[in-house]
Amino acid sequence: MTVEPAITPAPRVLETGGGVVISVDAMGGDRGPAVVVAGMAESAEKNPEIQFIVHGDEAQLRSLIGKRKSLAGRCDIRHAGSVVTMHDKPSQVVRKGEGSSMWSTIESVKQGEAQVAVSCGNTGALMALSMLRLRKLPGVNRPAIACLWPSRNPQGFNIMLDVGADIRADAHDLLQYALMGASYARNGLGVSQPRVGLLNVGTEEHKGRSELKQAHDLIDAAAGSGNFDYVGFVEGGDLPSSRVDVIVTDGFTGNVALKTGEGTAKLVGDFLKDAFSNSIMSKFAAVLAMTSLKRLQKRIDPRRVNGGIFLGLNGTVVKSHGSADATGVSAAIKLAFTLAKSGFQDRLAARVAQGAAASANAAETGASS
Amino acid sequence: MTVEPAITPAPRVLETGGGVVISVDAMGGDRGPAVVVAGMAESAEKNPEIQFIVHGDEAQLRSLIGKRKSLAGRCDIRHAGSVVTMHDKPSQVVRKGEGSSMWSTIESVKQGEAQVAVSCGNTGALMALSMLRLRKLPGVNRPAIACLWPSRNPQGFNIMLDVGADIRADAHDLLQYALMGASYARNGLGVSQPRVGLLNVGTEEHKGRSELKQAHDLIDAAAGSGNFDYVGFVEGGDLPSSRVDVIVTDGFTGNVALKTGEGTAKLVGDFLKDAFSNSIMSKFAAVLAMTSLKRLQKRIDPRRVNGGIFLGLNGTVVKSHGSADATGVSAAIKLAFTLAKSGFQDRLAARVAQGAAASANAAETGASS
Repeated sequence: MTVEPAITPAPRVLETGGGVVISVDAMGGDRGPAVVVAGMAESAEKNPEIQFIVHGDEAQLRSLIGKRKSLAGRCDIRHAGSVVTMHDKPSQVVRKGEGSSMWSTIESVKQGEAQVAVSCGNTGALMALSMLRLRKLPGVNRPAIACLWPSRNPQGFNIMLDVGADIRADAHDLLQYALMGASYARNGLGVSQPRVGLLNVGTEEHKGRSELKQAHDLIDAAAGSGNFDYVGFVEGGDLPSSRVDVIVTDGFTGNVALKTGEGTAKLVGDFLKDAFSNSIMSKFAAVLAMTSLKRLQKRIDPRRVNGGIFLGLNGTVVKSHGSADATGVSAAIKLAFTLAKSGFQDRLAARVAQGAAASANAAETGASS
Repeated sequence: MTVEPAITPAPRVLETGGGVVISVDAMGGDRGPAVVVAGMAESAEKNPEIQFIVHGDEAQLRSLIGKRKSLAGRCDIRHAGSVVTMHDKPSQVVRKGEGSSMWSTIESVKQGEAQVAVSCGNTGALMALSMLRLRKLPGVNRPAIACLWPSRNPQGFNIMLDVGADIRADAHDLLQYALMGASYARNGLGVSQPRVGLLNVGTEEHKGRSELKQAHDLIDAAAGSGNFDYVGFVEGGDLPSSRVDVIVTDGFTGNVALKTGEGTAKLVGDFLKDAFSNSIMSKFAAVLAMTSLKRLQKRIDPRRVNGGIFLGLNGTVVKSHGSADATGVSAAIKLAFTLAKSGFQDRLAARVAQGAAASANAAETGASS
């Protein structure tokens, strides 16, 4: 694995005996705190290094956590009196969200008590609060949400960003996404020299989208110093391909692509179920094919790719799916753990700073030439 | 089926004994003219009403067609000395494409000899030539390419447009897409009161994409007179859903979504194959599950949805996949036949004219109020 430039600021992070502390919002998901605590227990069993700071209704959490042996002595419960719901508007949450479990979860990262925050809550509100409390990294104009995409690559996933933090992105934002995505691929997926592609619509002559042409040149120029390979423009069909590890796009296009992919996988899955329940004979065949079908299901199981990452802030936030079950929550926590353990946040900050400097240099050179 | 307003201009179209004439470019596809002629033969067998004008190398075509009984006496062969390749740039084809089979194919529609054109050739070149020779319908600023999307609806497909004719679309273009898509749903899929949705990224507060908000209002206002229902904003996950029949978006987003959907379906299909070839036991299971798997394959078979339609021109052009086999070509011809038979082109023109008038009225009313 390529080592990211070692910029070591004063340690913001409390290391508990070499362990990793994850700050968890227990309240925001569709299924309530019981499922979140079950997911924490699953992670804790598999991983003795994880410690938690858990935010939510204290009495409820104390009772739920008390029932889990694997969590004994590993949770610091912080009472939060209110909950951000899925229907709350981000702007309201920013004004009135103090005291909520979501706010408190982010605060633990801001204060350096925990390395990464995990929440199943309202995405818009979580991003708004993260921006407000953690602030953007110097050099980042628009933070991004990065998702994992099942792929044909050895690591099993590709990374796509932005999938919805902002509906716009200019060329410099796209360059930052490339740098942040490459850093995530190195630290989260263990890809030493990530291949980055820029999402576009084919290679024909295009009249517009000048920001893509400009981003193309900027990313190409940054590849060498950024320790990644730039493969150029890629298309929607390349999202799961093995010719690229990181796909860069604006948040509008990325969000449509993400939801289209999820919707298509679900459609094919439903058609598959229909096909096997069509007759007695096909039901019989399904029983015999069970192992194979389960193998398929495991490979495209959305719970395995649970966890959008907010990138470009002074702190890492993992957004778990609102409807995640215990396995999904556990997957999000595992991702948070991997990133914390790799020192991702500091490495990312160093990359972004380097990129911003290079970009400014390029602009200057461009202007003077 | 709702009857579209009957505007009957002087008949531009040669009806051959009540039959339908399809103009076919035999040369442009990846697999050459043999596959195209095989597809024509498949359609001709199923459908005694179809007649063809076939464009390409005369000697080659005469030999290929001579071997097909079902095509005897039903093909008018037009020699074309050159072929537009997949690598030709649209701008070059516009300047130098006269004499190519693609040019000649479109010309037959322009001259009223055939009702619909079908080509497996280079999409960009086909659109450029279609624009040049057929010209845009009055009231249409940007023509669109509409595709069929496998869905949970009774008709089996939803329609999405634009999937790549133009990378931009303003609010008025999106309104035209809604009108054209609804007309296509009525005439091509037999949906009497199509439900139209506008692709967006969720229902949270958004800062930008003002053209989508404006299009939202325009389409909503046009629904009543346009004989369609407007369901509002939809997301990527709704593309195959049963709450909508027509999805409207700009050509950049639509193209990414289309290719993402195709790529995802292919990925799941490949994973399914892997799952069933994993062990001797699973191979055995696959044999038993064959009927069910074939049923699935048929349902998501891209050859069944073969045929992007160019909308907004003075003539209908069906773009078949470049790599289409005989079944794929036959599907594209069937679609062309259905549209020709329904009098789609004139109905579409009437809709667009009506929409443009309504839109102008609305703008005037808006200005005076």
